Amino acid sequence: MTAPTGPPVGSLTVLPVRGLGEIAAGDDLGRLITAAAAGQGTPLEAGDCLVVTQKVVSKAEGRIVPLPDGDAAARRRLVEAESVRVLRRRGELLITETRHGFVCANAGVDVSNVTAGTAALLPVDPDRSAWRILTAVAAATGVEVGVVVSDTFGRAWRHGLTDVAIGVAGMAAVTDLRGTPDALGRDLEVTEVAVADEIAAAAELVMGKAGGVPAAIVRGLELPPGPAGSGRDLVRPPALDLFR
Amino acid sequence: MTAPTGPPVGSLTVLPVRGLGEIAAGDDLGRLITAAAAGQGTPLEAGDCLVVTQKVVSKAEGRIVPLPDGDAAARRRLVEAESVRVLRRRGELLITETRHGFVCANAGVDVSNVTAGTAALLPVDPDRSAWRILTAVAAATGVEVGVVVSDTFGRAWRHGLTDVAIGVAGMAAVTDLRGTPDALGRDLEVTEVAVADEIAAAAELVMGKAGGVPAAIVRGLELPPGPAGSGRDLVRPPALDLFR
Repeated sequence: MTAPTGPPVGSLTVLPVRGLGEIAAGDDLGRLITAAAAGQGTPLEAGDCLVVTQKVVSKAEGRIVPLPDGDAAARRRLVEAESVRVLRRRGELLITETRHGFVCANAGVDVSNVTAGTAALLPVDPDRSAWRILTAVAAATGVEVGVVVSDTFGRAWRHGLTDVAIGVAGMAAVTDLRGTPDALGRDLEVTEVAVADEIAAAAELVMGKAGGVPAAIVRGLELPPGPAGSGRDLVRPPALDLFR
Repeated sequence: MTAPTGPPVGSLTVLPVRGLGEIAAGDDLGRLITAAAAGQGTPLEAGDCLVVTQKVVSKAEGRIVPLPDGDAAARRRLVEAESVRVLRRRGELLITETRHGFVCANAGVDVSNVTAGTAALLPVDPDRSAWRILTAVAAATGVEVGVVVSDTFGRAWRHGLTDVAIGVAGMAAVTDLRGTPDALGRDLEVTEVAVADEIAAAAELVMGKAGGVPAAIVRGLELPPGPAGSGRDLVRPPALDLFR
């Protein structure tokens, strides 16, 4: 009998990346995360998926704007400026469609984990943010990773929030299993899996919400190939959306 | 310098459980999964979250019913019988509310990974299903695990499907962070995280959709305490749901 030498085939590990420190506009996130991952003894490896929260991406990209604490009117104006359409209102909560096509609360404008008197806006182009990180990681380490920029969204019908992917680079956002037989030889009914959203959700489990863990490494997954993968692939086309 | 001795604090492992074989009505799923996990060298440990797909739960509970292949009218009748309300129709697709309160496609009636001429219905009481598994695991091993019964649902606004929790036992389904300060000392805005849904999503990443991996172990997470945790906690109360 031999002792087990590691996790079984097909298992997955999600590693928090700590020690990034407070991120400021202009910081090279890819380089900083590469260094932090190596510094904690878990250097990035080829085939990893690196998940980075929107909050630090927005900070690095200077998407922090002044917003007086408790100024509901100013906040509403900011949300409206970030939105192309308001789907629902309830009190101070607006469910809107952002310029990217995401449907979420308050257009993703968020005041947690930012300095008092400011708010974080979503990155202008989260796929580009993801590519920038991917490129910086490749330059620093020579390894190719997939990158997911994640944010925390609510859902229709279901209580509680989950992390989803808003930007993707180096992998497909959605796996397409159409035509794949199931275990009993019949065609699968479930054909398109939002794998980047599931990766973002898995990463959230090690990140928490109180800050301090703005990135995670998802290791062991065969990333779905997709050189043109995009967070936009996770937006249901409005014409096919029965609830927009 | 010492070599790293394992994954860093706060990391998470997701282990597929293989080798369950085809499940039949009356099978003791908890006992079978316990044996399969031990057989592959990854016995269940206290504090693990065991995720089990709805499909095998439905099989073990005899929730497989005859449905002639391709009989759209019979299928629609079945979906309607499983629903309390139809939210939307498009062609053969119905988005309905099930008796449990879940909003999903075709009331969860599914013909993948079941014998030709049959369909799988959702468990009558997925929390009870989860408790039954928890109890069987405890009886076989003496360890207490959390259990999530997962299914694959579509979402409004977002393309692609993700796994979510429909039944929960031994843990809270939603973590409540209200009143927790963020890293900068301000109150968190995101307060309720659908942790059981994120666990289900993480498990799906190692399960795939073609069958053969109907269970997974999520290890390393501090499960949110919740002796009365329930999959119903993940259903947004209709009065608070702007999209129902």
